[in-house]
Amino acid sequence: MSEAAAGEAVVRGQRVRMQPDERREQLIDIGVRMLATRPLEELSIDALADEAGISRGLLYHYFANKTEFHVAVVKKLSEDLYLITAPISDDDPLTQLRLSLDAYVSYVVENHSTYLALVRAVSTGIPEMVQIYRDAREALVVRLFDRMPQLAAEGIVDTPAARLLAHSWAVFVEDLVLAWIADDAGLSRDGLLDKLTGVLAVLLTS
Amino acid sequence: MSEAAAGEAVVRGQRVRMQPDERREQLIDIGVRMLATRPLEELSIDALADEAGISRGLLYHYFANKTEFHVAVVKKLSEDLYLITAPISDDDPLTQLRLSLDAYVSYVVENHSTYLALVRAVSTGIPEMVQIYRDAREALVVRLFDRMPQLAAEGIVDTPAARLLAHSWAVFVEDLVLAWIADDAGLSRDGLLDKLTGVLAVLLTS
Repeated sequence: MSEAAAGEAVVRGQRVRMQPDERREQLIDIGVRMLATRPLEELSIDALADEAGISRGLLYHYFANKTEFHVAVVKKLSEDLYLITAPISDDDPLTQLRLSLDAYVSYVVENHSTYLALVRAVSTGIPEMVQIYRDAREALVVRLFDRMPQLAAEGIVDTPAARLLAHSWAVFVEDLVLAWIADDAGLSRDGLLDKLTGVLAVLLTS
Repeated sequence: MSEAAAGEAVVRGQRVRMQPDERREQLIDIGVRMLATRPLEELSIDALADEAGISRGLLYHYFANKTEFHVAVVKKLSEDLYLITAPISDDDPLTQLRLSLDAYVSYVVENHSTYLALVRAVSTGIPEMVQIYRDAREALVVRLFDRMPQLAAEGIVDTPAARLLAHSWAVFVEDLVLAWIADDAGLSRDGLLDKLTGVLAVLLTS
């Protein structure tokens, strides 16, 4: 009975059979959407059960506890961010970087509450959250250096020092974009993107 | 009796009468020193009483509760940092900035555990801690822009946008210096200072 309910979802008014993995993904997506209107600590299993229209008991079939659910939601958010900022052109790396940053700024503007929930979740110090965040930043830095032939043409060399600097640049980007959204202080979006890319160029060239 | 004890301190083997304000300052200094060997959350009133050689009851004469003591310790740390990074030369602003950053790096290297305790205290989200941290960063940015005639000569204009960028630069400095101390990745101290000053120059000039 509960197995059947767990494997069903209402899509366009029809009950559709879903695989457990798909159902779990769907529940995580609902969690991500719910973050737009409340902080992570208020994302309870009860609230998720209400929103998803299934029983609280059934949810424990997918998530061992609330923290596991929260970690899954934060992981999904960081994966979304990685996909959204993927390079989308064959232009030179600094142009690509600017496009990625533009996509990042759009994401943070459009999903401001959700993004703040992500940032605040990390500051709680829960080790899994901190790890997801570090992994996400590491993935972005790795992807940045993945285009070495093009980067070398810009005078950028892939060294441990360059990666160290790129990590702190990512911290700078996050802080500045959040501060700019709160109060742009007269800085245009183009001006913001100029500064973000300009700083990385200074950091990565000698 | 307790009043007399509260107003006394042992200095070079002699009991010296102290004003309550001095005694409070001394207790805060002991708290700052204790942070070198334990995180803030383990800085208990009991441990302070042991270290200062006075009774737990007496400490409540100076601090209403543990949080008030913690806030006083963190405030003292942020004030120390402000004093330590004060400009110390009449050279051009970028040279002064480099000297200030050099003093900052020395402080964080020499007081690593204490500094980490400060950073972690802020990430607990206790509003007074967050406010002290914001105020400290604001004071540094205000001091930076205090030298406007010299800055103007470098092509730097004091605008709300420049201050927004300077704030995020301060976040970048903190992150990079801590990461560099953990693993310098082959980046020399001079190289680090070059990057820190170079980034601010890019941010503040158009």
